[in-house]
Amino acid sequence: MTTEQVPTALQVPARSIPVPTYLSVQAAGLLGMGCRSHTPYPALDDVDAWKLMIAEREQVSLGYLSQLFNQLPVSSETISVGGVVVYVLTPEHADAGDPRVYLEMHGGALISGSGDACRGMGAMSAMRSGLRTWAVDYRMPPDHPFPAALDDCIGVYRELLRNHSPGQLAVGGTSAGGNLAAALVLRARDEGLPTPAVVVLSTPEVDLTESGDSFHTNLGVDSILTESLMPANLLYADGHDLADPYLSPLFGDFTKGFSPTILTTGTRDLFLSNTVRMHRALRSAGIPAELHVMEAAPHGGFFGSSPEDAEIGREVRRFVGQHCVFVKEASD
Amino acid sequence: MTTEQVPTALQVPARSIPVPTYLSVQAAGLLGMGCRSHTPYPALDDVDAWKLMIAEREQVSLGYLSQLFNQLPVSSETISVGGVVVYVLTPEHADAGDPRVYLEMHGGALISGSGDACRGMGAMSAMRSGLRTWAVDYRMPPDHPFPAALDDCIGVYRELLRNHSPGQLAVGGTSAGGNLAAALVLRARDEGLPTPAVVVLSTPEVDLTESGDSFHTNLGVDSILTESLMPANLLYADGHDLADPYLSPLFGDFTKGFSPTILTTGTRDLFLSNTVRMHRALRSAGIPAELHVMEAAPHGGFFGSSPEDAEIGREVRRFVGQHCVFVKEASD
Repeated sequence: MTTEQVPTALQVPARSIPVPTYLSVQAAGLLGMGCRSHTPYPALDDVDAWKLMIAEREQVSLGYLSQLFNQLPVSSETISVGGVVVYVLTPEHADAGDPRVYLEMHGGALISGSGDACRGMGAMSAMRSGLRTWAVDYRMPPDHPFPAALDDCIGVYRELLRNHSPGQLAVGGTSAGGNLAAALVLRARDEGLPTPAVVVLSTPEVDLTESGDSFHTNLGVDSILTESLMPANLLYADGHDLADPYLSPLFGDFTKGFSPTILTTGTRDLFLSNTVRMHRALRSAGIPAELHVMEAAPHGGFFGSSPEDAEIGREVRRFVGQHCVFVKEASD
Repeated sequence: MTTEQVPTALQVPARSIPVPTYLSVQAAGLLGMGCRSHTPYPALDDVDAWKLMIAEREQVSLGYLSQLFNQLPVSSETISVGGVVVYVLTPEHADAGDPRVYLEMHGGALISGSGDACRGMGAMSAMRSGLRTWAVDYRMPPDHPFPAALDDCIGVYRELLRNHSPGQLAVGGTSAGGNLAAALVLRARDEGLPTPAVVVLSTPEVDLTESGDSFHTNLGVDSILTESLMPANLLYADGHDLADPYLSPLFGDFTKGFSPTILTTGTRDLFLSNTVRMHRALRSAGIPAELHVMEAAPHGGFFGSSPEDAEIGREVRRFVGQHCVFVKEASD
């Protein structure tokens, strides 16, 4: 196609989209709440306004996540790895002798989700995988833009490698955490480190350029992610090329190696294309990769307690267990 | 949720959706053509008008499919199985001693796609799987509504079982053909027949009630399937319950058994929910099932010759080969 033949954009009329009748009460309830509204993004250089906006956003999610953490049967310990805070979250039912660790990068658009929010998301992840989980409280903008977060995550991964075989390590994250999880594996590989046994990418933000089709087709359809995240992406990138694979792992060269990966998304997810394209990129390179798509689910799925999420959780747990195996040592 | 609390439908404003820049020339070309228009469906009881409409639709696709068939390195033989016409399509590169057969049900909304169109679609399928393919020219409405088509397909399957182990048989179809392929396996199982080694469901019309979310979210976004197919579904059902699993296999009980299945769709597909829900239904029942979603693809994917379709074709070929194995007999 030459530049003269610019294809016509599709004109889609306004529509009313009902809540599907066959969803669980929790899922239908979330969709029935309509679109979440956000305070607008500040100008890129208005550091104080960013800090205020981030604080406001964290206030909203923190109450929910703190309450959730208190309800989950997960114990928490806080450690420091080279100055980086890590929450070590152990599900009560976990085998004390199980050496496996799930390294979790939290969500929050690469600008929020620290502290108790990080711990809450890590606890949810620990319940889902069933594994002892290290939730990294990585540094973020505006004070610490790229590559601070990735530096922190790779530092923690290096520390884990000191006492674990790579076969005992899982790496994962949701949304922005999926970005860092995938970028971490690419960078580990590039630096000659062994890659983890398995990777979990839940509705991952693997393309900070936002080139995917669902950034258009699901805009206004996804009731959770209701707008472009570009201002946050630019704040995070701090002038670096958004298409660099360490910022947008979708554009990495997976023929040079990557770990077996399970990817999850929903049909209404603004990151549907992110997820589907990442799956295809991995498969094209011959990497074992599984895709699971939740019917009618917006970004992040339904509530963690919904039957739909529980079902996807079982897929994640199975996939992680298949690739990251707990070999009990002989007792003699 | 009580009936008093009907959740609010989502109001999505009109949008302009550009053609993604990273697609192949073929894929971008198809999307750039805009939405396909159709002659309206006739009244349900106007048999002559239906026959005219079906003839007009077949005229459009027939030229393309006949030309395609002539270009493909596939030989064709026509046989009759209990009065049902079957095109036996053999890829030139197929091993003459390979006993495996791919049983293909053609697409066409359960009302069209017979004759040379059936043969053309079967040849495309044969090229994709690499297997000798039996393409069933099943009876259709208005003269032969449900269960005529399914009766024909199950009859051909029974015939194949006379000379083949079920491990040598694959069953598949695209769109309406995916409906019949899945219904055939359910019915075979219910009638005590062995199920095939593998099933291929490409953007399958597994829910004639059209309850899936993408019937709303992708309406006007899918440039190929641009409207509800309900009139054709009702003509096919002929008064039978649309939710019966033999008409809408999505509602089958897969805990009673089903074959390993690969499912394919696109993010713009009107049948995205059909495909995703079928994948989840199979997985929930513990059936091995793989999902592959093509970025930005409408119903039926891009042209068969596009790199995107070729990549999905390789996934299908691999999955079929994994589950339906050609064991060469010892030569002594």
